[in-house]
Amino acid sequence: MLLAKTREQIDPIAHGWRIDRLKTALVPTMGNLHEGHLALVAAAKREADKVITSIYVNPTQFGQGEDFENYPRTLERDRELLAQAGCDLVFVPDQGVMYPFGLDDQVRVLAPAALANTLEGQTRPGHFDGVTTVVARLFNLVRPDIAVFGEKDYQQLLVIRRMSEDLGYGIRVVSVPTVRESSGLAMSSRNNYLDAGQRAGAGELSKVLLQAAHRIVRDSGNPEQVERDATDRLKQAGFQVDYVAVRRAQDLGTPQDSDRDLKVLAAVYFGGTRLIDNVNANRVGIPED
Amino acid sequence: MLLAKTREQIDPIAHGWRIDRLKTALVPTMGNLHEGHLALVAAAKREADKVITSIYVNPTQFGQGEDFENYPRTLERDRELLAQAGCDLVFVPDQGVMYPFGLDDQVRVLAPAALANTLEGQTRPGHFDGVTTVVARLFNLVRPDIAVFGEKDYQQLLVIRRMSEDLGYGIRVVSVPTVRESSGLAMSSRNNYLDAGQRAGAGELSKVLLQAAHRIVRDSGNPEQVERDATDRLKQAGFQVDYVAVRRAQDLGTPQDSDRDLKVLAAVYFGGTRLIDNVNANRVGIPED
Repeated sequence: MLLAKTREQIDPIAHGWRIDRLKTALVPTMGNLHEGHLALVAAAKREADKVITSIYVNPTQFGQGEDFENYPRTLERDRELLAQAGCDLVFVPDQGVMYPFGLDDQVRVLAPAALANTLEGQTRPGHFDGVTTVVARLFNLVRPDIAVFGEKDYQQLLVIRRMSEDLGYGIRVVSVPTVRESSGLAMSSRNNYLDAGQRAGAGELSKVLLQAAHRIVRDSGNPEQVERDATDRLKQAGFQVDYVAVRRAQDLGTPQDSDRDLKVLAAVYFGGTRLIDNVNANRVGIPED
Repeated sequence: MLLAKTREQIDPIAHGWRIDRLKTALVPTMGNLHEGHLALVAAAKREADKVITSIYVNPTQFGQGEDFENYPRTLERDRELLAQAGCDLVFVPDQGVMYPFGLDDQVRVLAPAALANTLEGQTRPGHFDGVTTVVARLFNLVRPDIAVFGEKDYQQLLVIRRMSEDLGYGIRVVSVPTVRESSGLAMSSRNNYLDAGQRAGAGELSKVLLQAAHRIVRDSGNPEQVERDATDRLKQAGFQVDYVAVRRAQDLGTPQDSDRDLKVLAAVYFGGTRLIDNVNANRVGIPED
């Protein structure tokens, strides 16, 4: 597996692959890799000839008081896991590569407001602007054909897909289903903040979301009632609830009766740790005449 | 000369040139081409193997009450001029190509504030955000090796160069000196708004700026005094003065005594038409021991 830390190092490698007509896939990560990330690498290998994984803990997507400083950094282990997974190139830029003019007077890429200001964006203002700002830089530095993102961060996936289309990148954004622990807990680097007991209990989040989705799909449950009931169940299970929302999968809009593809999304705090998750709720269409 | 209107049309052409290892230069324009633009195309031909000129009147860089609607559009003549100048491909996207999700919920690229909020940015708030937003799209759609901009829009040149470096595009931004009419008036599509008499009189703008530069360079003139005197002379010549500013060429900062490379920049209104211009003022350095 190749290693690049700068544009000067990655450019000749990526350029050579383009000349050889090899398709490249980028897997952007903040490191501290787990099975969820490795599923992204596996998908990238299926979709492209060469897989590039970037590791960069991006300061601009963390808000004040969030866990940028404490975010787990495990570079040596990450590189071993990526080599085993068949990644071709790991890109580990430092802040001078990603933000050559510093953070205070950077060129910023603003996420589309309607998509970015709801749900996560409401609790974490500016978060998605930091995400689009860093992913645009990665797209420009790496210039991949494909980029791979996980469905656990579903709103991020939609924001990045929109950015790629709206800014004319023409980079196909491939999504990969969430990988879960045996308890049902969605894999996340932030799960490291949980102790063993919390980790088992946190699985209840996905169970509540799945039950909510079943009520939408099977029982034609009213979305607002389903949200309220899921919120109650999560509180009873010891979570502090930020939001539970039934939304249109396509654009996170409020679902109309005619909308079929829905998502149940939630953010909770569990012993001080913020967890997010989402599940599909695809209503059966009424056959037309 | 080839013509492309969409990503689907430009992609295979540009991709073929990349595979053939041909270097490409992009000349972004808003059309209504004049000799200034043709000098950009000539420079692009010197710097690259293939020249792509884009023609797109970008709504997001016009402010309310500005001349977006009336901006001169002369596509047929532009294409003839470009073909004669040896341009290889003209890219004429429509709004659906440049802003596929419309103008109201677009992904925006914000220019760096310190550079963009002074001079033009003060009179035209948001102007440079519109410029970076459209040029980022053009960079992504065309993916050139080089981009060519004129020095007449000097602040724009610095903003674009910074964007290319800060966002990791690695696109070299080449600048071309201002082309002038015999009166000294800098070539600009907006000169079309002037009648013949105004057009001759407008040449006085460049003469005043050159005299100001001479005072800085030869007479070690105090920048603030030079600005005031130039403002007075412009008013006497019938201009309404927006600003005259002596600035550091590198970043448009206020010049210190030790700064050598300066610019004298101005924006004026002449019979309702807004004109901008700038000239170099390179102070002779004091030889060091």
